[in-house]
Amino acid sequence: MDMKQRIAEANEEVVRRLTSGLPVLVDIAPAGEIIPGMQDKMITHSGPPIEWSRMCGAQQGAVIGMVIYEGWAENPEEARALLDRGEIHLEPNHPHSTVGPMAGTISPSAPVWVVENRTFGNRAFCRQVEPRQQFGDYSPEALDGLRRWRDVWAPTLREALLHTGGVELNPIIIQALQMGDELHNRHSASSSLFANQMAVAISRADIPRDRALPTLEYLAGHNLLFLGLAMAAGKAIADPARGVESSSLVVAMCRNGTEFGIQVSGLQEEWFVAPAPAVDGLYLPGFAPTDAGLDMGDSAIAETVGWGAFALGGAPGILALVGGTPEDALGYTREMKRITTATHPTHRMPALGFEGTSVGIDIRKVVQTNISPIIDTAIAHREAGHPIIGAGLVRAPLECFKDALRAFGERYAS
Amino acid sequence: MDMKQRIAEANEEVVRRLTSGLPVLVDIAPAGEIIPGMQDKMITHSGPPIEWSRMCGAQQGAVIGMVIYEGWAENPEEARALLDRGEIHLEPNHPHSTVGPMAGTISPSAPVWVVENRTFGNRAFCRQVEPRQQFGDYSPEALDGLRRWRDVWAPTLREALLHTGGVELNPIIIQALQMGDELHNRHSASSSLFANQMAVAISRADIPRDRALPTLEYLAGHNLLFLGLAMAAGKAIADPARGVESSSLVVAMCRNGTEFGIQVSGLQEEWFVAPAPAVDGLYLPGFAPTDAGLDMGDSAIAETVGWGAFALGGAPGILALVGGTPEDALGYTREMKRITTATHPTHRMPALGFEGTSVGIDIRKVVQTNISPIIDTAIAHREAGHPIIGAGLVRAPLECFKDALRAFGERYAS
Repeated sequence: MDMKQRIAEANEEVVRRLTSGLPVLVDIAPAGEIIPGMQDKMITHSGPPIEWSRMCGAQQGAVIGMVIYEGWAENPEEARALLDRGEIHLEPNHPHSTVGPMAGTISPSAPVWVVENRTFGNRAFCRQVEPRQQFGDYSPEALDGLRRWRDVWAPTLREALLHTGGVELNPIIIQALQMGDELHNRHSASSSLFANQMAVAISRADIPRDRALPTLEYLAGHNLLFLGLAMAAGKAIADPARGVESSSLVVAMCRNGTEFGIQVSGLQEEWFVAPAPAVDGLYLPGFAPTDAGLDMGDSAIAETVGWGAFALGGAPGILALVGGTPEDALGYTREMKRITTATHPTHRMPALGFEGTSVGIDIRKVVQTNISPIIDTAIAHREAGHPIIGAGLVRAPLECFKDALRAFGERYAS
Repeated sequence: MDMKQRIAEANEEVVRRLTSGLPVLVDIAPAGEIIPGMQDKMITHSGPPIEWSRMCGAQQGAVIGMVIYEGWAENPEEARALLDRGEIHLEPNHPHSTVGPMAGTISPSAPVWVVENRTFGNRAFCRQVEPRQQFGDYSPEALDGLRRWRDVWAPTLREALLHTGGVELNPIIIQALQMGDELHNRHSASSSLFANQMAVAISRADIPRDRALPTLEYLAGHNLLFLGLAMAAGKAIADPARGVESSSLVVAMCRNGTEFGIQVSGLQEEWFVAPAPAVDGLYLPGFAPTDAGLDMGDSAIAETVGWGAFALGGAPGILALVGGTPEDALGYTREMKRITTATHPTHRMPALGFEGTSVGIDIRKVVQTNISPIIDTAIAHREAGHPIIGAGLVRAPLECFKDALRAFGERYAS
């Protein structure tokens, strides 16, 4: 069997794994209880590995926020001092079967969504999605959102979930893709559908009104709620596709606001990184591109499994947030077919005649076509201390794919 | 001022009314308590006026169902005998500020959605949406759905609603149009968003779990729930546009399965009718076009105010139900611009670059272009006693518009 055919067969196996996942929400538990390798005085972050001093302003701000939230420091100055002295252990999320939106910071007491891939038995984790601390805001208001999640919303949802025994996520994902969500920046449908299931579960578990009502209000008012679930599901779907010898398909794309990194199935745990790109997007009033940090977050796990900008053509409602026309959106989605290997059998887009989403980014195709994966994203401030300032689209840097292809060639040349 | 300008000004006023409605769900009450003119031994029905003997099989079946549901007869034979003797008073919904899906039958004890148009102070009513009795099925299972609505779901929702003080429907309508609903055959988003709000209201009103839980399950499991609300909202929006002297715009389109009827603002309460058309659609397993009844229901109030097939281009998810391609759907929506007067300022469709829906069907434009309004619809059996058998698209008969234009010419010729 020649190398080309070996790669084709390996890629077929990776696509089989990427398209056969059965993600089920099984728990919402404190990170320290559930994430393998999570320790005291440890914070995980989005993107490829990076030390404290090289982190961008927003990610530093988010880490400072977690240090205060955990009570390891009283204020930002104390937190910075601890971090400067290296007393807080920082690690990327991905090696811990974990993902996080934007700065992606997770500390031991923060409850995370726990999603099990029933086809392969693996679990993945993602933190709460909110518009402040994950963007680098460490104000008391920002940290209050984390505390409400820890003390009220997450334990209430956990109790309801454990009482009713898990929520299958594919039915929600499939419906949401038919309701104009692309499952990265737009989660209006998925969040609403999930909220209704949890309302039934909360009633079934007979949770007292003093916790049920604020949790129902949280669910009904949070139209990006499902992003955390979609990210955990994406990670749970992508992880079993890792480490398939000879496969040239991408199994992770993520960014820490300083660097963009990818991992390739046949190249094990090696990171291929390039400087994080600037985002092309729309800004909230009072902000401009000169305020913006560079691309950040593990949320590109969505595009890695075929959602997000890969499904933009089916989600034109998002254009009010990121800019562009419905024709642009359909164009991006069609373009992504040129760098992928298969279409998903059940994740379908009505606006494209119920065609499946494009799955299996092939580093060879990216380099051959010079077409880089397009990604929906939000925009953080370049300095620490701010909530969200905008949203837009970004292209993964071609250099990551070129470097990966070079390494792939070296490894599999013989 | 010449006649042409008088018509233009009248139509502008009608469009102003059609686009400035503020529908609010204010109650869910038994028809006999709330619908003006509803009496004992009376059943209202969809479409233009029609006597019992000329009703189609499905509408007869639905009327029989209501007679048994009310306890006026023990079985279908007794019910038919009562109806044959003229002992049940039958009237169309529309003159009672009311609409109903498919057969549209409403009897005194049936709870109806009560929607108030806050801009004009008028109220409109619509019955529960379900897949059996409204299609002509009078089996015990079909009637059990009406009883559960009357005894559990409607009173629970009423209590929650009255406790929290009404639900504004425009925010749901606006969001749903951006989430792939067209607000006639597809209500996945609107139903889910409404259910989120009612879950909060049920908790706020502290309704006991034995009624709260089945109601939450009903809400979470009924993806056409909002159709009744959209129809009541459409009727509440359209009614203030009636009776504007010199206006050539349509204020009602409806069908009773025998005849299709329209009303025109400048022609007061006169009906212009033609034989109900056959539906072009997809059938549930085991059914074929030879089983189908003709077009039926007041639900074309959706198209009358710019939703339904007029917004099909923004709702490609529906094509799995009614057939066709996304390009067909966009084509229908663009075509409807040619027979309408304005675009809605806030009811927008992302897939059409956030353009507003087409509002104000002008009988002159319909006749000039030979383009008849297109309508999303469901399909009932031609005989009494069956639940839903399919769904599809239908064109309003041109004859209604030609007759109306003739009458309009006679009235305003001088």
